[in-house]
Amino acid sequence: MPVPSGEIILNAFTMNTPVHLTTGLWRHPRDRSRRYLDIDHWIELARTLEGGGIDAMFIADVLGVYDVFGGSPDAALRTGAQVPVNDPLGLIPAMAAATEHLGFGMTASISFEHPFPFARRMSTLDHLTNGRIAWNVVTGYLASGMLNLGVPGQVAHDRRYDIAGEYLRVCYKLWERSWEDDAVILDAAGDVYTDPAKVHPIRHDGEFFRVPGIHLAEPSPQRTPFLYQAGASPRGLRFAGQHAEGVFVASPSVSILAAQVAAVAEAVAAAGRDPRSVPVINQQTVVVAETDAEARRLFSEYLEYADPVGAQVLMSGWTGIDFARLDQDRVLERTDSDAIQTTVDAFTSADPTRTWTPRQIGEYAAIGGDGPVLVGSPETVADALEEIVAASGAGGFNLAAVAVPESWEQIVGLLVPELRRRGRVKEAYRPGTLRAKLGAADRLQAPHPGATITLDPA
Amino acid sequence: MPVPSGEIILNAFTMNTPVHLTTGLWRHPRDRSRRYLDIDHWIELARTLEGGGIDAMFIADVLGVYDVFGGSPDAALRTGAQVPVNDPLGLIPAMAAATEHLGFGMTASISFEHPFPFARRMSTLDHLTNGRIAWNVVTGYLASGMLNLGVPGQVAHDRRYDIAGEYLRVCYKLWERSWEDDAVILDAAGDVYTDPAKVHPIRHDGEFFRVPGIHLAEPSPQRTPFLYQAGASPRGLRFAGQHAEGVFVASPSVSILAAQVAAVAEAVAAAGRDPRSVPVINQQTVVVAETDAEARRLFSEYLEYADPVGAQVLMSGWTGIDFARLDQDRVLERTDSDAIQTTVDAFTSADPTRTWTPRQIGEYAAIGGDGPVLVGSPETVADALEEIVAASGAGGFNLAAVAVPESWEQIVGLLVPELRRRGRVKEAYRPGTLRAKLGAADRLQAPHPGATITLDPA
Repeated sequence: MPVPSGEIILNAFTMNTPVHLTTGLWRHPRDRSRRYLDIDHWIELARTLEGGGIDAMFIADVLGVYDVFGGSPDAALRTGAQVPVNDPLGLIPAMAAATEHLGFGMTASISFEHPFPFARRMSTLDHLTNGRIAWNVVTGYLASGMLNLGVPGQVAHDRRYDIAGEYLRVCYKLWERSWEDDAVILDAAGDVYTDPAKVHPIRHDGEFFRVPGIHLAEPSPQRTPFLYQAGASPRGLRFAGQHAEGVFVASPSVSILAAQVAAVAEAVAAAGRDPRSVPVINQQTVVVAETDAEARRLFSEYLEYADPVGAQVLMSGWTGIDFARLDQDRVLERTDSDAIQTTVDAFTSADPTRTWTPRQIGEYAAIGGDGPVLVGSPETVADALEEIVAASGAGGFNLAAVAVPESWEQIVGLLVPELRRRGRVKEAYRPGTLRAKLGAADRLQAPHPGATITLDPA
Repeated sequence: MPVPSGEIILNAFTMNTPVHLTTGLWRHPRDRSRRYLDIDHWIELARTLEGGGIDAMFIADVLGVYDVFGGSPDAALRTGAQVPVNDPLGLIPAMAAATEHLGFGMTASISFEHPFPFARRMSTLDHLTNGRIAWNVVTGYLASGMLNLGVPGQVAHDRRYDIAGEYLRVCYKLWERSWEDDAVILDAAGDVYTDPAKVHPIRHDGEFFRVPGIHLAEPSPQRTPFLYQAGASPRGLRFAGQHAEGVFVASPSVSILAAQVAAVAEAVAAAGRDPRSVPVINQQTVVVAETDAEARRLFSEYLEYADPVGAQVLMSGWTGIDFARLDQDRVLERTDSDAIQTTVDAFTSADPTRTWTPRQIGEYAAIGGDGPVLVGSPETVADALEEIVAASGAGGFNLAAVAVPESWEQIVGLLVPELRRRGRVKEAYRPGTLRAKLGAADRLQAPHPGATITLDPA
C-alpha cells in the first residue's frame, strides 16, 4: 500500500451528522443529508459505495461542538455545522449486514472510554463485519468535548500521545495476545468450548492503565482493526510512524501534501517500518458530471446553497481563530497571529496569486471545508487525482460529499469507472479482511508493534 | 403497565455470547448459539421474535468473567459460561433495520462510560430504532470487570447508587431538557438548521460529574430510553422505585416473586409514583412442544447436553460462593455461611420438600440458570404463566432460550398463539415508541424524575 500497480485507495468520507464538511447544502432540494437519522439511509449508501468499488466508508466523529466562532455553540447550531452529531458505531453493523466487501472506518478518541471496554467494542465490530473495521485513532479533539467529561483543560498535547501509546499497547495485548488462534476448540464430546491454557490474562500494569485480565472477545478476523491516524505535529507524526497503517491528511495544496507524505514516510522509517506500507490518504471533495461544463454548472448550483458562515464556524474550530471577531473584508496578514499565519500559509499554498479575507475564506471553504474541490468531467477529475498522486506520493483519497447522496452517485457512477479504465482502481475487491483488501495480510505483521508485543510473565 | 386487560409482557432474554443462562447446550446438534458472531443470526432472530409478537429482545451483558469458581476464569472458558461475550450495542441497529415494532433492550453499567458520550450513544440508538430502545441500568457487576478498569475493589454498594443517581440526572438533563422539541426548524430560506435559543447547555455541576454543555443529539422519539432496572437490595429498590419503568427479577419461586413485586410496588409508591405503572418482569425459561409428553421428551433430550459445571460457574459468580471448593455431595446447610444461607433459602423456596447438594444445584441450574423451567404443551405452560402472574402480580417475563433458535421458535410458534387465544398477549403491536407499545405515553411523564428535572439557571 500503495500497491505496486499504482492503485489509488478511495474512501467515502462522511459523518453521522447532516452537515459534515460542506455547509448549507442541506438546503439543496436534492440533498438528503437530513436522513442521517434513518438507518435505511446508511444501508442504501453502503450499497451504493460497494456497488462502485469504494474501499471503505469512513465515519468521522467529534464529541463536542464548534464553539470557538462567537464564543458559543449558537452559530454551529444555526448552520448545523457538525451538530447535531450522533455516535458512528451503531451504523456499521447494519451497513455490514447489507454488504460483503466495503470497509468501515470510525473515529474514536482514546480520551472517552477505557481501553478494556473499547477493545471489546472493536472486536465485536470486527466479528460482525467479518474483519472490515478500521479505527481512526484520535487522542483528543474539541475542548468543548473534554470539558463535558469533567476535564477542565485539554491534557498537554505530548502527554496525550504518551497516554495514547499505552492505550494502544493495552489494546494490542487484548487483541493480539490474550487469545491464541486455536483457543476456541468447540470440543463437544470433551465438553470444552475454549481451552483455558490458550487464553492469557494480559497483566498490564502501566503508568495510566492497569488491566490484569483476559480479553472478553475471541479472536476476530483482523484481531487489531486496520489503524488510521491523523496526527500532523512532530509528536503526532512519531505516533503515526509507530502505529498507523494509513494516515489521513487534509492538505490545502499538492506541495503541502507532498511534504506531509515525505514526513509520514520519514516517521514510518524511523520506527523501523517500510514507508511504502503506510499510504497517506488526502481529504478531497469532488463535483463530477458527464462534461466539464455540466460539472461547472452543477458546482455553481451548489454554490447558491453553500453557507460561508457555517464554513467559518468549522474553520474557527479547526484553527482556534474566532472568525466572528475578524473584520470580514480585511486581508489576513501572516503577522496577525500565529494561528492566522498558519491559515494564511495554507491558503497561499493553495493559490499563491491572491490574498484572503475572512469572508473569502468562508466562501471558499463552504464547499469541501479545509481542502480544495475538484470540478469536472470524469476525465478531468481523474487527471487531477492522478496528478496529485504523482506529484505527492499520496496513496489515496477520502472523498467527501457536497450533496448527499448525489455526490456518491457521481463518484461511483462516473469517476470510479474512469479510474478503473486507467487501471488506478481495482476491478473487484480482493478476498479477506479489509487489511487484505488493501493489499496487506489479514492481520498485523512484524515489525508493527501490535504484531510484536509481548505479555509480561506471570 | 401491567395494562388493565391483563396483558403479559414477553421479552426475549439473550446475550451476545454463545452460552447465556443454559450451559452445555451449545453441544446440541440443533443448537446455533455459535452463530452469535454472525449479524445475520441476530437479524433472523429479530424477525422471528417480531413475527411472534414478542415485545422486546433484551440483551444482557457483563464486562467481566466468572472467575469465582476455582478462583480463575478457566472453568468459565472451558464451559463457555458467558465468555466469550461481545458488546451488545452494535447488534441493535442491524436488527432494527430488519424489523418495525420489536423493542431492543441492552444492559449498560454506569461504571464503564462517562454519561456525556453514553447519553449520545443511547440517543443515536433511539433515533436509529425509531424509539424502540430500552436501557437496563446496572451500577456495577463482576469484580473482575471493575479490576480491568483499574478499580481495585468495587465501589461501596450504596455509594454506587449515589453515583448512579447523579449519572441518571445528567442523562435526563441531556435527553429531556437540552433540546426543545421544536429546536430543529430546518428553515431553508432563513438558513437556520437549529434555533440556538431552543438548545440549552445543561450546566450540570455535581458531586461526581461536571457537564456544562449541550447534548450533541437532537431529540429522539423517546428522548429517555425505556428504563429497566434490576436492583434487589434496599438501596437498589429505592433507586428502582425512583427511576425504573420496569424491574427485572429472577425469582426461584412464586412466593419470592410475590414478595419482590410487593417490594417494588412499595418502593415505587414511596417515590410518589403509581405502582401499577412499573411492571416486574421475571426471568423464565420454557420448553414448549405440541404435547406435554413431547415437551418432557424434549426436556430430557436437552438435559443430556446440559453442563452442571458451567451452571456452577455461573452460580459461583452470582452468589460469591466458590462451588469448586464445596463437597459436591454434602447437603448445603443454612448455617454454612451467609451466602449459602441465601442460596439454600432460594432453592428451598422453589421446592420445600427437599435438600440440595452442590452437584444437585449444578444439575438443576444447567437449564435456565437461577430460575425454574416450565416444561409442557402450550396450554400447560400458558396455565403456569397465568398462575405466576395471578399469584405474584408480576407484569411479564424475560423468556430465556434453552436451544437457539429452537426455543424462540417454540415460543413464537406455540406459546404466544395460546396466550393470544387467552387474551393475555395483544394481537398486534401498538403504534409509537417502545414506551407507547407497552401502554404508556411516547415519552416519560411526571412524576417520573426524568420528566420533571430542571436545569440550573445560568
